Amino acid sequence: MTGTTDLIITNGFLMTMDPENNVIENGAVAVVGDTISAVGPMDELACIKAKETIDAAGGIIMPGLINTQTHAAMTLFRGLADDLPLMTWLNDYIFPAEAQLDENKVHVGSMLACAEMILSGTTCFCDMYLFEDAVARATKAAGMRAVVGEVLYDFPSPNYGEIEKGFHYTRQLIDTWRDDPLITIAVEPHSPYLCAPDLLTEAAVMAKDNGLPLVIHLSETRSEVSDIQKKYGATPVGHLADLGILGPNLLACHCVVLSNSDMDLIGQYDVKVSHNPESNMKLAAGVSPVWDMISRNICTGIGTDGCSSNNNLDLFEEMDTAAKLHKANSLDPTVMNATTVLRMATIDGARALGIEDITGSIETGKKADIIVIDTNKPHLTPMYNPASHLVYSVNGSDVYASVVNGQVLMKDRKLMTMDIKKVLADSRQIAKTIVNQ
Amino acid sequence: MTGTTDLIITNGFLMTMDPENNVIENGAVAVVGDTISAVGPMDELACIKAKETIDAAGGIIMPGLINTQTHAAMTLFRGLADDLPLMTWLNDYIFPAEAQLDENKVHVGSMLACAEMILSGTTCFCDMYLFEDAVARATKAAGMRAVVGEVLYDFPSPNYGEIEKGFHYTRQLIDTWRDDPLITIAVEPHSPYLCAPDLLTEAAVMAKDNGLPLVIHLSETRSEVSDIQKKYGATPVGHLADLGILGPNLLACHCVVLSNSDMDLIGQYDVKVSHNPESNMKLAAGVSPVWDMISRNICTGIGTDGCSSNNNLDLFEEMDTAAKLHKANSLDPTVMNATTVLRMATIDGARALGIEDITGSIETGKKADIIVIDTNKPHLTPMYNPASHLVYSVNGSDVYASVVNGQVLMKDRKLMTMDIKKVLADSRQIAKTIVNQ
Repeated sequence: MTGTTDLIITNGFLMTMDPENNVIENGAVAVVGDTISAVGPMDELACIKAKETIDAAGGIIMPGLINTQTHAAMTLFRGLADDLPLMTWLNDYIFPAEAQLDENKVHVGSMLACAEMILSGTTCFCDMYLFEDAVARATKAAGMRAVVGEVLYDFPSPNYGEIEKGFHYTRQLIDTWRDDPLITIAVEPHSPYLCAPDLLTEAAVMAKDNGLPLVIHLSETRSEVSDIQKKYGATPVGHLADLGILGPNLLACHCVVLSNSDMDLIGQYDVKVSHNPESNMKLAAGVSPVWDMISRNICTGIGTDGCSSNNNLDLFEEMDTAAKLHKANSLDPTVMNATTVLRMATIDGARALGIEDITGSIETGKKADIIVIDTNKPHLTPMYNPASHLVYSVNGSDVYASVVNGQVLMKDRKLMTMDIKKVLADSRQIAKTIVNQ
Repeated sequence: MTGTTDLIITNGFLMTMDPENNVIENGAVAVVGDTISAVGPMDELACIKAKETIDAAGGIIMPGLINTQTHAAMTLFRGLADDLPLMTWLNDYIFPAEAQLDENKVHVGSMLACAEMILSGTTCFCDMYLFEDAVARATKAAGMRAVVGEVLYDFPSPNYGEIEKGFHYTRQLIDTWRDDPLITIAVEPHSPYLCAPDLLTEAAVMAKDNGLPLVIHLSETRSEVSDIQKKYGATPVGHLADLGILGPNLLACHCVVLSNSDMDLIGQYDVKVSHNPESNMKLAAGVSPVWDMISRNICTGIGTDGCSSNNNLDLFEEMDTAAKLHKANSLDPTVMNATTVLRMATIDGARALGIEDITGSIETGKKADIIVIDTNKPHLTPMYNPASHLVYSVNGSDVYASVVNGQVLMKDRKLMTMDIKKVLADSRQIAKTIVNQ
């Protein structure tokens, strides 16, 4: 270990999520700059003097959670419309609201999302939306880690207009954010049903040429599968295979309606999957065959999707739902056990985003993306098994501290990197204009 | 209105859950003693001077939530065993742990449950467990409202031993708690698979003779239905119909595996149902046809079941799951809308327990069982629709105040009626003895 220790987080059940799933009772983590410098029992790290100490007070220390699919600025539409047929929801509420967005509104909505995520223990997210430079700036200002990409589709975008300008915008994002310690740019065609084959191919080439993730919505609904089948004579997964764009850098979000051949292809090409159970339930898409994919060693993270189909960004609740949904669906209580689900929301999420070398677990040399859970509460007492608590009992409000890249973003429920009163006031102001449209 | 006003709760979106589902923006509720004395817009109630004021600060004022099925003291086994086949879970973990219970342990576990429920906005619950006199005493000490009954079954109970003593114990409960303002005793045979026909009939007679609820687990799993069918030549619901014990005072918990004829019978006899979605998911029982039952006007409340199959008592999370699960299961996003689910967790829950005349809605003359939600938080901003927030975005930690029978049990997350440090310490001590059994 070299240099002055900046931060030590100590006195907790340390869930490393390392390859052996090591759990250290009375564990501690030391941080130098942005990097984890030591991990071990409190006793062994007792000699380390740090500039700042976070006392977990017998709670849980774990890697920050990773949200593998969201549309952060849709926090602005939280609860705007629910319980509606999909097309009514989209055409009468969401699309008209989105048509009013601009760079400033997306910045405010993204700050609001970052506040919510930091407070609920998410340290990294993958975003697809409009005006993504504003999302990247908000994320950077909040101090979070993110993979962001401008949504690309065939029809005119409220941001860039025609699709060629969308690719130009994406190239600018890549140039602007290259080598940023927190922001990774992705190329993000919306879906096979909103993107022509040429668009998909061009996006895949751009991602490959720049060594970036390619993010897409895939096989979310039965109607998508049936439409693509009619149009291209293949399932959505098969269609992407035909276009030659399945590969390990592809993150396929949703994957609800899959055939065995689809899963074979996903496995064969090492495609990554974002499982978004609450959104799939709320929009009545159905239940993804996640357990089957995990049994095939397909790397699967957990996402909340946007706030308008969830309606929050709490990954602890999402883990709980993921663990339970597939038990009910398969009538087998042993599937999706707590440890599996915890790995999905941490290290497997990092793998899904191609950033497992720097985050997703607490290991020496990785970036310090760490959260602390306060378990001294009635609903977390007693504690026989921290993994069980994290999946089945904790909610986002139990997070005591959030650290990203070595920076303490929240401690004792206080946000350190933003004027939250202003973010809330600005968000409410924008909401008024949306209602009065 | 007569007498001095003791309490006024003001300055919030007031969700009355009255028969017209009235919502009053900038509403207020006045309380005299244990009773709601006035309900209306803040302006109209501005002249009322009360001894105590709770300022909802633009949040939500609503009836306290009603948990129609739990086993409160099982908080002591929270996270003791998860992700296991049902029989392993029961025989190797839960039954051995329960064999060690005594009156004191159940009192501590029930106090822990009351703390969790009060903090998460539940003001009334229906309990089935062992040593129920201790549950009633803990509930009374905590200031909550409850329907409680000693579990009755064929094999020897760790509390009363043989079944005849179980009926004797229940009679004592009835005598002890008659006319109590907070506690209602119920007669609670466990289930058709753990209770012989004679036991079920005797329990039903006792409930009827005393005008009390009869509470039972019913049609929870496929194996239960198949076993009862083999043994009695009828489904569990049909079996109870054959015994003549279906009726409006019967609360049937779970009701996961139901035929159309079962639902016909439940509707015909006005049997009440407790829907426990998270427990049914976690134990892989399956998905109850709740939307079908609601469409038939069958009165359905929401329960968490015990903490060892959930693993918390947060009815806000349970509402969220209930709303989403049936959308995914039916592939229809319009079923189980937010208002329906809110009514299940409030006034319909009260009806299910036979106490709708005193609780479940905010109406003049009813007992003051009221909670306040703090919505000034990132994950609850903006707010277009309070009902949507309550079901899809709020969790139990957002409850700012809980009032039962006119008494403020919690304000600003501080419990008023118990020494919570001692309850947590006692619970941890008991947990150690359970692990070291």
